[in-house]
Amino acid sequence: VEQSLEQLYRDYIAALNRRDFNELGQFVHDQLTYNNELWTLSRYQALLAEDVQRIPDLHYEIQLLVTHEDHVACRLWFDCTPRSEFLGIQTQGRNVSFAEHVFYRFREKRIANVWSVVDADSIRRQLGSS
Amino acid sequence: VEQSLEQLYRDYIAALNRRDFNELGQFVHDQLTYNNELWTLSRYQALLAEDVQRIPDLHYEIQLLVTHEDHVACRLWFDCTPRSEFLGIQTQGRNVSFAEHVFYRFREKRIANVWSVVDADSIRRQLGSS
Repeated sequence: VEQSLEQLYRDYIAALNRRDFNELGQFVHDQLTYNNELWTLSRYQALLAEDVQRIPDLHYEIQLLVTHEDHVACRLWFDCTPRSEFLGIQTQGRNVSFAEHVFYRFREKRIANVWSVVDADSIRRQLGSS
Repeated sequence: VEQSLEQLYRDYIAALNRRDFNELGQFVHDQLTYNNELWTLSRYQALLAEDVQRIPDLHYEIQLLVTHEDHVACRLWFDCTPRSEFLGIQTQGRNVSFAEHVFYRFREKRIANVWSVVDADSIRRQLGSS
């Protein structure tokens, strides 16, 4: 069971890296919570699509992956070039690298809950604007 | 094995909540990495002790805990009152609540690597200073 949840999660990340946002319903419930707020799948799709608009070279790299029963915890690493603004930070076309630490609860093989923290302060430090 | 790593981690958090910083060597190696930097146990103890100086009512609450083999991933929740400044943010004596998402790798039952991201932006939003 755990092995297959790990593979399912890796398939989900691969879909994000292919920009297959229309396939997201395979991996994510129609209703989910995102940082304890009730979200729809459409809103989640819109968030992910907006990230790619802001960061054309966005690539999700799994650095650490811990799975147990219906939970996945992942340290994602990004090395990318936002066009101009990301997370309210003016990046001025510069390359930045940063981590996102994200927890998921799956239900019936699809994501039902997401808790995400992005290391925005490390982006500010790289830009010298903290 | 997994059950005991979970219990070991819960014992570590209980020690932090009792301010038993002198016991930390039971749980943490003399040399560790913190966000990929080489740290000593003394430096790690100093960081934790400084957090309590800055936040006398600091309490670590485990909200999500995912363990697998030698890895632990935890969503910690804090509801606390920094005296005046924390993470470079002027909190002006106000109560704040926020998450830390932290990954650990254990080696021989002690922490060898820590990767931590604190949701500093949510503190700024609560204070209306983002």
